[in-house]
Amino acid sequence: MHVLIIGAAGMLGRKLSEGLVSDGKIGDRAIKRLTLADAIAPKVPHGFTGDAACVTVDLTAPDAAASLLHAKPDVIFHLAAIVSGEAEVDFEKGYAVNLDGTRALFEEIRLAQKDGPWKPRLVFASSIAVFGGDMPDVIGDDYFHTPETSYGTQKAICELLLADYSRRGIFDGIAIRLPTVCVRPGAPNKAASGFFSGIIREPLAGLPAILPVSDDVRHWMASPRATVAFLIHAAEIDLSLMKNRRCITMPGTSVTVKEQIDALVRVAGTKLADLIERKRDPAIELIVSGWARGFNPQRAESLGFKADKEFDDIVRIHIQDELGGKLPNLG
Amino acid sequence: MHVLIIGAAGMLGRKLSEGLVSDGKIGDRAIKRLTLADAIAPKVPHGFTGDAACVTVDLTAPDAAASLLHAKPDVIFHLAAIVSGEAEVDFEKGYAVNLDGTRALFEEIRLAQKDGPWKPRLVFASSIAVFGGDMPDVIGDDYFHTPETSYGTQKAICELLLADYSRRGIFDGIAIRLPTVCVRPGAPNKAASGFFSGIIREPLAGLPAILPVSDDVRHWMASPRATVAFLIHAAEIDLSLMKNRRCITMPGTSVTVKEQIDALVRVAGTKLADLIERKRDPAIELIVSGWARGFNPQRAESLGFKADKEFDDIVRIHIQDELGGKLPNLG
Repeated sequence: MHVLIIGAAGMLGRKLSEGLVSDGKIGDRAIKRLTLADAIAPKVPHGFTGDAACVTVDLTAPDAAASLLHAKPDVIFHLAAIVSGEAEVDFEKGYAVNLDGTRALFEEIRLAQKDGPWKPRLVFASSIAVFGGDMPDVIGDDYFHTPETSYGTQKAICELLLADYSRRGIFDGIAIRLPTVCVRPGAPNKAASGFFSGIIREPLAGLPAILPVSDDVRHWMASPRATVAFLIHAAEIDLSLMKNRRCITMPGTSVTVKEQIDALVRVAGTKLADLIERKRDPAIELIVSGWARGFNPQRAESLGFKADKEFDDIVRIHIQDELGGKLPNLG
Repeated sequence: MHVLIIGAAGMLGRKLSEGLVSDGKIGDRAIKRLTLADAIAPKVPHGFTGDAACVTVDLTAPDAAASLLHAKPDVIFHLAAIVSGEAEVDFEKGYAVNLDGTRALFEEIRLAQKDGPWKPRLVFASSIAVFGGDMPDVIGDDYFHTPETSYGTQKAICELLLADYSRRGIFDGIAIRLPTVCVRPGAPNKAASGFFSGIIREPLAGLPAILPVSDDVRHWMASPRATVAFLIHAAEIDLSLMKNRRCITMPGTSVTVKEQIDALVRVAGTKLADLIERKRDPAIELIVSGWARGFNPQRAESLGFKADKEFDDIVRIHIQDELGGKLPNLG
């Protein structure tokens, strides 16, 4: 089978590529061809023996969708997006990439069907940013979407499009609302959620970190390892079980910032907490105040999606997968 | 103040125009200018003494939004849409008018603000077709939107756009989800919901009517009179009370087809029911099976929106407003 990953150079895209190459298959079908696309050049993971291509693409270009889809891949992972902070600052760029870029992909699949039958599986990385405003502490699967960011609005719109295109048989789509990925490895990005990872990642590297919100802020998180497993599972399962409701919240771990720091201390020692400097940022506080704190993701669980067991495990996964099992020497 | 009605030649647009001319004002501001736009030429209601203009416009034309908005109206009613049945048959036309046409209006307002301050009230006619699939008998205000038609998808997307543009201060928007309007006067249109009106309207005119679904189908309805009152109320109230949740379900009357016919008989006599022929249409049954049966519209009620008291009143309103109070002579 031929797998296309759009957004393959990002953190999740790279980990997904590696995971797919490691598995060698999706369900019981071998991955023979892999196309990796992103705004900056992606890299093919070591060890892939099939045909691989890397494509640099601007999703706002008129021919972008056609160039990505002309080979009619069997599975499409669409992870590419302008992140929340940037989409809030740059209205036009956010809508151009996150809404119009995604819709152009969907349209290209619809129009290509005039050439003959082709119905790919399409896994769309949505976000819990589709929820906003005054929310209950635990949000059920049938709770409404009232995003408080343009990013969340764009994700919610793409979910609706995906469900309609799937209902019409144009592709076999599923949108999975990813929790905030934590601990996100590498350098900070422009996402307003960046500090949830920073307060764990930086101390574990022996570096100072800024905490821009109150310790009692609660949020919904999943490790990169669990998140990649969500994406692959979404490509494998029988979507007819979902009927026309193709958009679901992924399981996660609901923790406060304080509980995050307590887990860090339990796993890696008291001294690391001293590296976290509290410095409120009203702009980030405002965005984060409109985010969900927890879910009861029964539908996803009934479909076999599995979260990390507890936040301590999320800290341990970062140490194992990113730091080779090593903790900093703080003297 | 200057009022623009887009979709002014349709049944609701005409009744809204008449209602506004009759009131002479919105809130405490006199209506001095009225622009009526539609795909076919609208007419200015008798008795309007201000400046009036009628515009024929194709919302899919590149200059449509600019031509409608260059005079910077204070209140915009956007009622224009491809109806549900047609949007389901003609995918491209439905998206072009219902999504792209609406988004172009929103964008035109955003871009016009570069010329100076202008923040109109924008009242968008949404629909309970944003709900779909397995639904509870009574749907609460925080229930999710999983439309089972392209029309419902397009309305749900425009709601999200309206909320985001309002949150960003581009306009002062409200989307009101109208119940199925019943009794819709005039000739049948392509809406799959047409029979809900036909089984009342045609017998009251002494004509036969087709009932394409089972007698126990339940649905959410409002009279044209109540619906016009929703639109005008939406233009008058303080929207800051809604915070960023600008999209709400209107009150209505939840009745089965049997209860509709019983009301017809109570108000207008037993013989009229004999004019209704039962002839199932699987295509219509399928669409209608994905529609909502009832709501608990607390938010709308707390904002002062008021439904008809009972279906008998809806029959009486049709007889008063459309038939001059006269019933057919069936011999």
